[in-house]
Amino acid sequence: MNAEELFRNIQRKKSYLCIGLDTDYSRIPRLLLEKEYPIFEFNRHIIDATEDLVVAYKPNVAFYESMGAAGFMSLELTVNYLRKHYPDIFIIIDAKRGDIGNTSRMYANAYFKTLDCDAITLFPYMGRDSLIPFLENEGRWAVILALTSNQGSEDFQQLEIRGGKRLFEKVITTTASWGTVNNIMYVVGATKAEQLRNIRKMIPEHFLLVPGIGAQGGSLYDVAEFGMNDRCGLLVNAGRSIIYADVTNRFEQAARQEASRLQQQMEATLRNRNLI
Amino acid sequence: MNAEELFRNIQRKKSYLCIGLDTDYSRIPRLLLEKEYPIFEFNRHIIDATEDLVVAYKPNVAFYESMGAAGFMSLELTVNYLRKHYPDIFIIIDAKRGDIGNTSRMYANAYFKTLDCDAITLFPYMGRDSLIPFLENEGRWAVILALTSNQGSEDFQQLEIRGGKRLFEKVITTTASWGTVNNIMYVVGATKAEQLRNIRKMIPEHFLLVPGIGAQGGSLYDVAEFGMNDRCGLLVNAGRSIIYADVTNRFEQAARQEASRLQQQMEATLRNRNLI
Repeated sequence: MNAEELFRNIQRKKSYLCIGLDTDYSRIPRLLLEKEYPIFEFNRHIIDATEDLVVAYKPNVAFYESMGAAGFMSLELTVNYLRKHYPDIFIIIDAKRGDIGNTSRMYANAYFKTLDCDAITLFPYMGRDSLIPFLENEGRWAVILALTSNQGSEDFQQLEIRGGKRLFEKVITTTASWGTVNNIMYVVGATKAEQLRNIRKMIPEHFLLVPGIGAQGGSLYDVAEFGMNDRCGLLVNAGRSIIYADVTNRFEQAARQEASRLQQQMEATLRNRNLI
Repeated sequence: MNAEELFRNIQRKKSYLCIGLDTDYSRIPRLLLEKEYPIFEFNRHIIDATEDLVVAYKPNVAFYESMGAAGFMSLELTVNYLRKHYPDIFIIIDAKRGDIGNTSRMYANAYFKTLDCDAITLFPYMGRDSLIPFLENEGRWAVILALTSNQGSEDFQQLEIRGGKRLFEKVITTTASWGTVNNIMYVVGATKAEQLRNIRKMIPEHFLLVPGIGAQGGSLYDVAEFGMNDRCGLLVNAGRSIIYADVTNRFEQAARQEASRLQQQMEATLRNRNLI
Protein backbone atom coordinates (compact mmCIF):
# COMPACT_ATOMS: atom_id res chain seq x y z
CA MET A 1 0.00 0.00 0.00
CA ASN A 2 1.43 3.43 -0.85
CA ALA A 3 0.74 6.77 0.85
CA GLU A 4 -2.02 7.72 -1.60
CA GLU A 5 -3.88 4.45 -1.01
CA LEU A 6 -3.52 4.88 2.73
CA PHE A 7 -4.99 8.38 2.47
CA ARG A 8 -7.91 7.09 0.39
CA ASN A 9 -8.64 4.51 3.10
CA ILE A 10 -8.57 7.30 5.67
CA GLN A 11 -11.08 9.28 3.58
CA ARG A 12 -13.34 6.28 3.08
CA LYS A 13 -13.30 5.26 6.76
CA LYS A 14 -13.35 8.91 7.94
CA SER A 15 -10.77 7.82 10.45
CA TYR A 16 -7.03 7.78 11.00
CA LEU A 17 -7.31 5.49 13.98
CA CYS A 18 -4.95 2.57 14.56
CA ILE A 19 -5.77 0.10 17.30
CA GLY A 20 -2.83 -1.34 19.22
CA LEU A 21 -3.41 -5.06 19.74
CA ASP A 22 -1.29 -5.22 22.90
CA THR A 23 -3.18 -8.24 24.08
CA ASP A 24 -2.30 -9.29 27.59
CA TYR A 25 -3.32 -12.83 28.45
CA SER A 26 -4.12 -11.82 32.02
CA ARG A 27 -6.74 -9.31 30.84
CA ILE A 28 -8.70 -11.56 28.50
CA PRO A 29 -12.31 -12.28 29.55
CA ARG A 30 -12.63 -15.68 31.12
CA LEU A 31 -15.00 -17.12 28.54
CA LEU A 32 -12.22 -16.94 25.89
CA LEU A 33 -9.59 -18.70 27.99
CA GLU A 34 -10.90 -22.16 27.14
CA LYS A 35 -10.21 -21.61 23.41
CA GLU A 36 -7.02 -23.07 21.90
CA TYR A 37 -5.60 -19.60 21.11
CA PRO A 38 -7.26 -17.18 23.55
CA ILE A 39 -5.16 -14.18 22.45
CA PHE A 40 -6.16 -14.68 18.84
CA GLU A 41 -9.81 -15.16 19.84
CA PHE A 42 -9.74 -11.90 21.78
CA ASN A 43 -8.14 -10.07 18.84
CA ARG A 44 -10.66 -11.53 16.39
CA HIS A 45 -13.55 -10.23 18.49
CA ILE A 46 -11.93 -6.79 18.85
CA ILE A 47 -11.25 -6.64 15.11
CA ASP A 48 -14.77 -7.66 14.09
CA ALA A 49 -16.22 -5.09 16.51
CA THR A 50 -14.07 -2.16 15.35
CA GLU A 51 -12.83 -2.73 11.79
CA ASP A 52 -15.19 -0.21 10.13
CA LEU A 53 -13.88 2.53 12.45
CA VAL A 54 -10.14 2.12 11.86
CA VAL A 55 -7.56 2.08 9.07
CA ALA A 56 -4.86 0.10 10.85
CA TYR A 57 -4.10 -2.40 13.58
CA LYS A 58 -0.77 -2.60 15.36
CA PRO A 59 0.02 -5.80 17.27
CA ASN A 60 2.99 -5.33 19.60
CA VAL A 61 5.12 -8.46 19.27
CA ALA A 62 6.19 -8.36 22.94
CA PHE A 63 2.76 -9.44 24.08
CA TYR A 64 2.88 -12.50 21.80
CA GLU A 65 6.52 -13.43 22.30
CA SER A 66 6.02 -13.42 26.04
CA MET A 67 3.70 -16.41 25.57
CA GLY A 68 6.31 -18.41 23.64
CA ALA A 69 5.52 -20.42 20.50
CA ALA A 70 1.77 -20.44 21.25
CA GLY A 71 1.81 -16.67 21.45
CA PHE A 72 3.61 -16.41 18.15
CA MET A 73 0.93 -18.64 16.65
CA SER A 74 -1.74 -16.20 17.91
CA LEU A 75 0.12 -13.40 16.15
CA GLU A 76 0.20 -15.36 12.87
CA LEU A 77 -3.49 -16.19 13.18
CA THR A 78 -4.32 -12.53 13.86
CA VAL A 79 -2.40 -11.22 10.84
CA ASN A 80 -3.82 -13.95 8.60
CA TYR A 81 -7.35 -13.21 9.82
CA LEU A 82 -6.97 -9.52 9.02
CA ARG A 83 -5.52 -10.27 5.58
CA LYS A 84 -8.31 -12.68 4.72
CA HIS A 85 -11.33 -10.77 6.01
CA TYR A 86 -10.23 -7.13 5.80
CA PRO A 87 -7.67 -6.86 2.99
CA ASP A 88 -7.61 -3.03 3.02
CA ILE A 89 -6.49 -2.80 6.64
CA PHE A 90 -2.95 -1.51 7.14
CA ILE A 91 -1.09 -3.92 9.44
CA ILE A 92 1.78 -2.48 11.46
CA ILE A 93 3.85 -4.98 13.34
CA ASP A 94 5.19 -3.18 16.40
CA ALA A 95 8.43 -5.11 16.70
CA LYS A 96 10.98 -2.31 17.19
CA ARG A 97 13.70 -4.22 15.38
CA GLY A 98 16.98 -3.32 13.68
CA ASP A 99 20.16 -5.38 13.27
CA ILE A 100 23.19 -5.78 11.02
CA GLY A 101 22.25 -6.06 7.34
CA ASN A 102 21.95 -9.82 6.89
CA THR A 103 19.93 -10.11 10.10
CA SER A 104 17.64 -7.19 9.27
CA ARG A 105 16.95 -9.02 6.02
CA MET A 106 15.76 -12.02 8.07
CA TYR A 107 13.36 -9.75 9.97
CA ALA A 108 12.10 -8.18 6.74
CA ASN A 109 11.40 -11.67 5.42
CA ALA A 110 9.73 -12.70 8.67
CA TYR A 111 7.29 -9.81 8.75
CA PHE A 112 6.79 -8.90 5.08
CA LYS A 113 6.83 -12.42 3.58
CA THR A 114 6.25 -15.16 6.19
CA LEU A 115 3.74 -12.79 7.77
CA ASP A 116 2.07 -10.46 5.26
CA CYS A 117 2.34 -7.18 7.21
CA ASP A 118 2.43 -3.71 5.64
CA ALA A 119 4.81 -2.06 8.05
CA ILE A 120 7.23 -2.68 10.89
CA THR A 121 8.52 -0.37 13.62
CA LEU A 122 12.32 -0.04 13.72
CA PHE A 123 15.09 1.41 15.88
CA PRO A 124 17.39 3.76 13.94
CA TYR A 125 20.36 3.36 16.33
CA MET A 126 22.34 0.93 14.12
CA GLY A 127 22.12 3.20 11.08
CA ARG A 128 21.71 2.84 7.37
CA ASP A 129 22.55 -0.81 6.70
CA SER A 130 20.20 -1.89 9.52
CA LEU A 131 17.22 -0.13 7.85
CA ILE A 132 17.83 -0.54 4.12
CA PRO A 133 16.66 -4.20 3.96
CA PHE A 134 13.20 -3.04 5.09
CA LEU A 135 13.05 -0.40 2.35
CA GLU A 136 13.62 -2.84 -0.50
CA ASN A 137 10.10 -4.25 -0.43
CA GLU A 138 7.63 -2.52 -2.76
CA GLY A 139 4.53 -1.35 -0.91
CA ARG A 140 5.98 -2.10 2.56
CA TRP A 141 6.96 0.45 5.17
CA ALA A 142 9.67 1.10 7.71
CA VAL A 143 8.20 2.93 10.70
CA ILE A 144 11.22 4.53 12.33
CA LEU A 145 11.26 5.41 16.02
CA ALA A 146 12.03 9.12 16.20
CA LEU A 147 10.54 10.67 19.35
CA THR A 148 8.77 8.14 21.52
CA SER A 149 5.93 8.77 23.96
CA ASN A 150 7.68 7.58 27.12
CA GLN A 151 9.57 9.50 29.79
CA GLY A 152 12.87 7.91 28.74
CA SER A 153 12.71 9.66 25.35
CA GLU A 154 14.45 12.54 27.12
CA ASP A 155 17.55 10.50 27.93
CA PHE A 156 18.96 10.17 24.40
CA GLN A 157 16.43 11.21 21.74
CA GLN A 158 16.41 14.81 22.97
CA LEU A 159 20.18 15.16 23.26
CA GLU A 160 21.58 18.11 21.38
CA ILE A 161 23.96 17.10 18.60
CA ARG A 162 26.88 19.29 17.57
CA GLY A 163 25.41 21.78 15.12
CA GLY A 164 22.26 22.33 17.17
CA LYS A 165 19.85 19.61 16.11
CA ARG A 166 18.45 17.16 18.60
CA LEU A 167 19.15 13.45 18.04
CA PHE A 168 15.58 12.65 16.99
CA GLU A 169 15.69 15.49 14.45
CA LYS A 170 18.97 14.19 13.06
CA VAL A 171 17.42 10.70 12.88
CA ILE A 172 14.50 12.08 10.87
CA THR A 173 16.48 14.19 8.41
CA THR A 174 19.15 11.53 7.85
CA THR A 175 16.87 8.53 7.42
CA ALA A 176 14.36 10.42 5.23
CA SER A 177 17.00 10.51 2.50
CA TRP A 178 17.25 6.70 2.52
CA GLY A 179 13.66 6.14 1.38
CA THR A 180 10.53 7.94 0.24
CA VAL A 181 7.17 9.14 1.59
CA ASN A 182 5.85 5.80 0.33
CA ASN A 183 8.05 3.56 2.44
CA ILE A 184 9.08 5.49 5.55
CA MET A 185 6.94 6.85 8.36
CA TYR A 186 8.02 8.06 11.80
CA VAL A 187 6.90 7.37 15.34
CA VAL A 188 6.27 10.60 17.24
CA GLY A 189 4.57 10.29 20.61
CA ALA A 190 1.32 12.19 21.21
CA THR A 191 2.80 13.27 24.52
CA LYS A 192 5.26 15.39 22.49
CA ALA A 193 2.59 17.24 20.47
CA GLU A 194 4.43 20.56 20.84
CA GLN A 195 7.27 19.04 18.80
CA LEU A 196 4.97 18.02 15.94
CA ARG A 197 4.91 21.50 14.41
CA ASN A 198 8.68 21.51 14.13
CA ILE A 199 8.74 17.93 12.79
CA ARG A 200 6.14 18.85 10.15
CA LYS A 201 8.48 21.58 8.92
CA MET A 202 11.26 19.02 8.44
CA ILE A 203 9.09 16.37 6.78
CA PRO A 204 5.88 17.97 5.50
CA GLU A 205 4.75 14.92 3.53
CA HIS A 206 5.63 11.85 5.58
CA PHE A 207 3.07 9.88 7.52
CA LEU A 208 3.53 9.90 11.28
CA LEU A 209 2.49 7.07 13.57
CA VAL A 210 1.42 8.69 16.82
CA PRO A 211 1.07 6.54 19.94
CA GLY A 212 0.37 7.87 23.38
CA ILE A 213 -3.23 9.06 23.36
CA GLY A 214 -5.56 7.19 25.67
CA ALA A 215 -3.78 5.39 28.50
CA GLN A 216 -0.60 7.48 28.08
CA GLY A 217 -2.45 10.82 28.19
CA GLY A 218 -1.66 12.59 24.89
CA SER A 219 -4.27 14.87 23.28
CA LEU A 220 -5.91 13.88 20.00
CA TYR A 221 -6.80 17.51 19.36
CA ASP A 222 -3.19 18.71 19.72
CA VAL A 223 -1.88 15.92 17.50
CA ALA A 224 -4.22 16.98 14.66
CA GLU A 225 -3.56 20.66 15.23
CA PHE A 226 0.21 20.36 14.94
CA GLY A 227 0.69 17.15 12.94
CA MET A 228 -1.92 16.93 10.19
CA ASN A 229 -0.97 17.65 6.59
CA ASP A 230 -3.00 17.87 3.37
CA ARG A 231 -3.15 14.08 3.00
CA CYS A 232 -3.88 13.67 6.73
CA GLY A 233 -0.37 12.28 7.30
CA LEU A 234 -1.34 10.79 10.65
CA LEU A 235 -2.09 7.40 12.05
CA VAL A 236 -3.03 7.80 15.69
CA ASN A 237 -2.74 4.71 17.83
CA ALA A 238 -4.75 3.81 20.91
CA GLY A 239 -4.32 0.42 22.51
CA ARG A 240 -5.21 -0.26 26.10
CA SER A 241 -7.88 2.45 26.31
CA ILE A 242 -9.83 0.61 23.58
CA ILE A 243 -9.14 -3.08 23.95
CA TYR A 244 -9.49 -3.06 27.74
CA ALA A 245 -12.31 -0.49 27.89
CA ASP A 246 -14.24 -3.23 29.65
CA VAL A 247 -12.82 -6.55 30.81
CA THR A 248 -16.09 -8.44 31.21
CA ASN A 249 -18.04 -10.22 28.48
CA ARG A 250 -19.10 -6.77 27.24
CA PHE A 251 -15.53 -6.07 26.04
CA GLU A 252 -16.46 -5.94 22.35
CA GLN A 253 -19.20 -3.34 22.77
CA ALA A 254 -17.03 -1.26 25.09
CA ALA A 255 -14.09 -1.39 22.67
CA ARG A 256 -16.39 -0.35 19.82
CA GLN A 257 -17.78 2.51 21.88
CA GLU A 258 -14.32 3.89 22.69
CA ALA A 259 -13.07 3.44 19.11
CA SER A 260 -16.21 5.15 17.84
CA ARG A 261 -15.70 8.10 20.17
CA LEU A 262 -12.20 8.62 18.74
CA GLN A 263 -13.34 8.03 15.15
CA GLN A 264 -16.02 10.73 15.53
CA GLN A 265 -13.48 13.25 16.75
CA MET A 266 -11.25 12.32 13.81
CA GLU A 267 -14.12 12.64 11.32
CA ALA A 268 -14.89 16.13 12.64
CA THR A 269 -11.24 17.14 12.26
CA LEU A 270 -11.00 15.74 8.72
CA ARG A 271 -14.17 17.72 7.79
CA ASN A 272 -12.81 20.91 9.33
CA ARG A 273 -9.69 20.51 7.22
CA ASN A 274 -11.73 19.76 4.06
CA LEU A 275 -10.01 16.40 3.72
CA ILE A 276 -13.32 14.55 3.39
CA MET B 1 25.00 -15.53 37.23
CA ASN B 2 27.03 -12.56 38.47
CA ALA B 3 30.28 -11.13 37.06
CA GLU B 4 32.47 -13.11 39.44
CA GLU B 5 30.82 -16.41 38.48
CA LEU B 6 31.15 -15.55 34.81
CA PHE B 7 34.87 -14.85 35.32
CA ARG B 8 35.30 -18.17 37.15
CA ASN B 9 33.71 -19.97 34.17
CA ILE B 10 36.13 -18.14 31.87
CA GLN B 11 39.07 -19.33 34.02
CA ARG B 12 37.80 -22.89 34.15
CA LYS B 13 37.12 -23.10 30.40
CA LYS B 14 40.23 -21.02 29.53
CA SER B 15 38.02 -19.25 27.05
CA TYR B 16 35.92 -16.12 26.68
CA LEU B 17 34.32 -17.34 23.50
CA CYS B 18 30.62 -16.94 22.78
CA ILE B 19 29.16 -18.74 19.77
CA GLY B 20 26.42 -16.92 17.88
CA LEU B 21 23.68 -19.39 17.01
CA ASP B 22 22.53 -17.45 13.93
CA THR B 23 21.13 -20.57 12.40
CA ASP B 24 19.93 -20.12 8.85
CA TYR B 25 17.60 -22.83 7.63
CA SER B 26 19.06 -22.61 4.13
CA ARG B 27 22.55 -23.52 5.39
CA ILE B 28 21.65 -26.58 7.43
CA PRO B 29 23.13 -29.89 6.16
CA ARG B 30 20.55 -31.89 4.28
CA LEU B 31 20.55 -34.87 6.62
CA LEU B 32 19.04 -32.71 9.37
CA LEU B 33 16.21 -31.30 7.28
CA GLU B 34 14.03 -34.36 7.74
CA LYS B 35 13.91 -33.83 11.52
CA GLU B 36 10.86 -32.14 13.05
CA TYR B 37 12.91 -29.10 14.21
CA PRO B 38 15.97 -28.92 11.93
CA ILE B 39 17.22 -25.64 13.40
CA PHE B 40 17.19 -27.07 16.90
CA GLU B 41 18.86 -30.27 15.68
CA PHE B 42 21.63 -28.24 14.05
CA ASN B 43 22.11 -26.18 17.22
CA ARG B 44 22.18 -29.27 19.40
CA HIS B 45 24.97 -30.78 17.30
CA ILE B 46 26.95 -27.52 17.32
CA ILE B 47 26.51 -27.19 21.09
CA ASP B 48 27.58 -30.76 21.85
CA ALA B 49 30.63 -30.33 19.61
CA THR B 50 31.81 -27.04 21.13
CA GLU B 51 30.49 -26.66 24.67
CA ASP B 52 33.78 -27.37 26.45
CA LEU B 53 35.45 -24.56 24.44
CA VAL B 54 33.01 -21.73 25.18
CA VAL B 55 31.40 -19.86 28.07
CA ALA B 56 28.34 -18.57 26.24
CA TYR B 57 25.96 -19.06 23.34
CA LYS B 58 24.04 -16.26 21.71
CA PRO B 59 21.05 -17.19 19.54
CA ASN B 60 19.91 -14.25 17.41
CA VAL B 61 16.10 -14.24 17.56
CA ALA B 62 15.77 -12.97 13.96
CA PHE B 63 16.83 -16.32 12.57
CA TYR B 64 14.12 -18.11 14.57
CA GLU B 65 11.35 -15.56 14.17
CA SER B 66 11.82 -15.62 10.41
CA MET B 67 10.60 -19.23 10.49
CA GLY B 68 7.38 -18.34 12.36
CA ALA B 69 6.03 -20.39 15.27
CA ALA B 70 8.12 -23.46 14.31
CA GLY B 71 11.25 -21.29 14.47
CA PHE B 72 10.29 -19.97 17.87
CA MET B 73 9.85 -23.57 19.04
CA SER B 74 13.41 -24.32 17.88
CA LEU B 75 14.61 -21.38 19.99
CA GLU B 76 12.79 -22.69 23.06
CA LEU B 77 14.17 -26.20 22.50
CA THR B 78 17.71 -24.81 22.13
CA VAL B 79 17.57 -22.76 25.33
CA ASN B 80 15.99 -25.62 27.25
CA TYR B 81 18.62 -28.06 25.92
CA LEU B 82 21.43 -25.77 27.09
CA ARG B 83 19.83 -25.29 30.51
CA LYS B 84 19.35 -29.01 31.03
CA HIS B 85 22.68 -30.35 29.77
CA TYR B 86 25.06 -27.45 30.36
CA PRO B 87 23.72 -25.43 33.30
CA ASP B 88 26.88 -23.28 33.63
CA ILE B 89 26.63 -21.89 30.10
CA PHE B 90 25.75 -18.20 29.89
CA ILE B 91 22.84 -17.77 27.46
CA ILE B 92 22.54 -14.41 25.72
CA ILE B 93 19.41 -13.91 23.72
CA ASP B 94 20.32 -11.54 20.90
CA ALA B 95 16.93 -9.89 20.57
CA LYS B 96 17.86 -6.20 20.44
CA ARG B 97 14.68 -5.14 22.22
CA GLY B 98 13.51 -2.08 24.13
CA ASP B 99 10.02 -0.62 24.51
CA ILE B 100 7.90 1.48 26.86
CA GLY B 101 8.01 0.23 30.44
CA ASN B 102 5.03 -2.12 30.55
CA THR B 103 6.07 -3.68 27.24
CA SER B 104 9.73 -4.05 28.21
CA ARG B 105 8.43 -5.90 31.24
CA MET B 106 6.69 -8.38 28.88
CA TYR B 107 10.00 -8.94 27.07
CA ALA B 108 11.85 -9.40 30.37
CA ASN B 109 9.28 -12.03 31.35
CA ALA B 110 9.52 -13.69 27.92
CA TYR B 111 13.28 -14.10 28.00
CA PHE B 112 14.11 -14.35 31.71
CA LYS B 113 11.09 -16.38 32.87
CA THR B 114 9.26 -18.14 30.00
CA LEU B 115 12.72 -18.79 28.54
CA ASP B 116 15.45 -19.12 31.17
CA CYS B 117 18.12 -16.90 29.54
CA ASP B 118 20.87 -15.08 31.43
CA ALA B 119 21.04 -11.97 29.30
CA ILE B 120 19.31 -10.06 26.52
CA THR B 121 20.66 -7.47 24.06
CA LEU B 122 18.82 -4.13 24.18
CA PHE B 123 18.59 -0.85 22.29
CA PRO B 124 19.18 2.19 24.54
CA TYR B 125 17.31 4.64 22.27
CA MET B 126 14.09 4.76 24.33
CA GLY B 127 15.94 5.55 27.55
CA ARG B 128 15.70 4.69 31.18
CA ASP B 129 12.18 3.31 31.56
CA SER B 130 12.72 1.01 28.57
CA LEU B 131 15.74 -0.63 30.23
CA ILE B 132 14.88 -0.68 33.94
CA PRO B 133 12.49 -3.69 33.71
CA PHE B 134 15.43 -5.81 32.53
CA LEU B 135 17.57 -4.72 35.49
CA GLU B 136 15.09 -5.84 38.12
CA ASN B 137 15.87 -9.55 37.76
CA GLU B 138 18.56 -10.85 40.13
CA GLY B 139 21.34 -12.60 38.24
CA ARG B 140 20.08 -11.52 34.79
CA TRP B 141 21.78 -9.07 32.48
CA ALA B 142 20.94 -6.24 30.13
CA VAL B 143 23.44 -6.18 27.25
CA ILE B 144 23.16 -2.65 25.93
CA LEU B 145 24.06 -1.81 22.33
CA ALA B 146 26.71 0.90 22.52
CA LEU B 147 28.96 0.79 19.44
CA THR B 148 27.97 -1.88 16.97
CA SER B 149 30.19 -3.67 14.47
CA ASN B 150 28.37 -2.60 11.30
CA GLN B 151 29.07 0.27 8.91
CA GLY B 152 25.85 2.05 9.95
CA SER B 153 27.22 2.56 13.47
CA GLU B 154 28.73 5.76 12.08
CA ASP B 155 25.35 7.28 11.23
CA PHE B 156 24.13 7.96 14.77
CA GLN B 157 26.27 6.19 17.40
CA GLN B 158 29.33 8.25 16.48
CA LEU B 159 27.54 11.61 16.41
CA GLU B 160 29.13 14.23 18.62
CA ILE B 161 26.84 15.40 21.40
CA ARG B 162 26.98 18.94 22.75
CA GLY B 163 29.76 18.89 25.34
CA GLY B 164 32.05 16.76 23.19
CA LYS B 165 31.08 13.16 23.90
CA ARG B 166 29.93 10.86 21.14
CA LEU B 167 26.44 9.36 21.39
CA PHE B 168 27.72 5.84 22.20
CA GLU B 169 29.89 7.28 25.00
CA LYS B 170 26.91 9.16 26.41
CA VAL B 171 24.87 5.95 26.21
CA ILE B 172 27.54 4.10 28.20
CA THR B 173 28.07 6.69 30.92
CA THR B 174 24.35 7.38 31.35
CA THR B 175 23.11 3.79 31.42
CA ALA B 176 25.97 2.57 33.63
CA SER B 177 24.43 4.58 36.49
CA TRP B 178 21.13 2.68 36.15
CA GLY B 179 22.61 -0.71 37.05
CA THR B 180 25.77 -2.42 38.23
CA VAL B 181 28.70 -4.42 36.85
CA ASN B 182 26.61 -7.47 37.73
CA ASN B 183 23.63 -6.69 35.52
CA ILE B 184 24.82 -4.50 32.64
CA MET B 185 27.27 -5.27 29.88
CA TYR B 186 27.84 -3.40 26.61
CA VAL B 187 28.06 -4.40 22.98
CA VAL B 188 31.18 -2.98 21.34
CA GLY B 189 32.04 -4.25 17.87
CA ALA B 190 35.45 -5.85 17.33
CA THR B 191 35.69 -3.73 14.18
CA LYS B 192 35.98 -0.72 16.51
CA ALA B 193 38.89 -2.07 18.56
CA GLU B 194 40.65 1.30 18.57
CA GLN B 195 37.72 2.65 20.61
CA LEU B 196 37.99 -0.07 23.24
CA ARG B 197 40.85 1.65 25.07
CA ASN B 198 38.73 4.75 25.52
CA ILE B 199 35.67 2.70 26.54
CA ARG B 200 37.75 0.83 29.14
CA LYS B 201 38.65 4.18 30.71
CA MET B 202 34.96 5.02 31.07
CA ILE B 203 33.91 1.61 32.39
CA PRO B 204 36.94 -0.28 33.68
CA GLU B 205 34.94 -3.07 35.31
CA HIS B 206 32.00 -3.86 33.04
CA PHE B 207 31.89 -6.90 30.82
CA LEU B 208 31.83 -6.16 27.09
CA LEU B 209 30.18 -8.39 24.51
CA VAL B 210 32.27 -8.08 21.37
CA PRO B 211 30.84 -9.30 18.06
CA GLY B 212 32.51 -8.82 14.71
CA ILE B 213 35.50 -11.16 14.69
CA GLY B 214 35.35 -13.92 12.10
CA ALA B 215 33.01 -13.18 9.20
CA GLN B 216 32.97 -9.43 9.96
CA GLY B 217 36.77 -9.14 10.06
CA GLY B 218 37.61 -7.78 13.55
CA SER B 219 40.87 -8.84 15.24
CA LEU B 220 40.81 -11.03 18.34
CA TYR B 221 44.28 -9.83 19.26
CA ASP B 222 43.28 -6.14 19.17
CA VAL B 223 40.14 -6.80 21.19
CA ALA B 224 42.17 -8.40 24.00
CA GLU B 225 44.91 -5.77 23.78
CA PHE B 226 42.51 -2.84 24.22
CA GLY B 227 39.50 -4.39 25.97
CA MET B 228 40.64 -6.91 28.56
CA ASN B 229 40.54 -6.05 32.25
CA ASP B 230 41.66 -7.88 35.40
CA ARG B 231 38.59 -10.12 35.40
CA CYS B 232 38.84 -10.64 31.64
CA GLY B 233 35.78 -8.43 31.09
CA LEU B 234 35.25 -9.77 27.59
CA LEU B 235 32.92 -12.15 25.85
CA VAL B 236 33.95 -12.37 22.21
CA ASN B 237 31.33 -13.64 19.82
CA ALA B 238 31.84 -15.53 16.59
CA GLY B 239 28.88 -16.89 14.69
CA ARG B 240 28.99 -17.70 11.01
CA SER B 241 32.74 -18.41 10.93
CA ILE B 242 32.16 -21.27 13.39
CA ILE B 243 28.73 -22.69 12.71
CA TYR B 244 29.12 -22.64 8.92
CA ALA B 245 32.83 -23.54 8.90
CA ASP B 246 31.72 -26.49 6.78
CA VAL B 247 28.23 -27.06 5.41
CA THR B 248 28.51 -30.77 4.68
CA ASN B 249 27.99 -33.61 7.16
CA ARG B 250 31.37 -32.68 8.65
CA PHE B 251 29.89 -29.44 10.08
CA GLU B 252 30.35 -30.49 13.71
CA GLN B 253 34.04 -31.30 13.40
CA ALA B 254 34.68 -28.14 11.38
CA ALA B 255 32.81 -25.99 13.93
CA ARG B 256 34.81 -27.56 16.75
CA GLN B 257 38.06 -26.97 14.90
CA GLU B 258 37.34 -23.27 14.37
CA ALA B 259 36.08 -22.80 17.95
CA SER B 260 39.17 -24.59 19.23
CA ARG B 261 41.46 -22.33 17.21
CA LEU B 262 39.88 -19.25 18.84
CA GLN B 263 39.86 -20.85 22.30
CA GLN B 264 43.59 -21.57 22.04
CA GLN B 265 44.32 -17.94 21.17
CA MET B 266 42.18 -16.88 24.12
CA GLU B 267 43.91 -19.31 26.48
CA ALA B 268 47.31 -17.90 25.45
CA THR B 269 46.09 -14.37 26.08
CA LEU B 270 44.64 -15.24 29.49
CA ARG B 271 47.97 -16.86 30.46
CA ASN B 272 49.95 -13.84 29.27
CA ARG B 273 47.78 -11.66 31.49
CA ASN B 274 48.13 -14.04 34.45
CA LEU B 275 44.37 -14.48 34.59
CA ILE B 276 44.66 -18.28 34.59
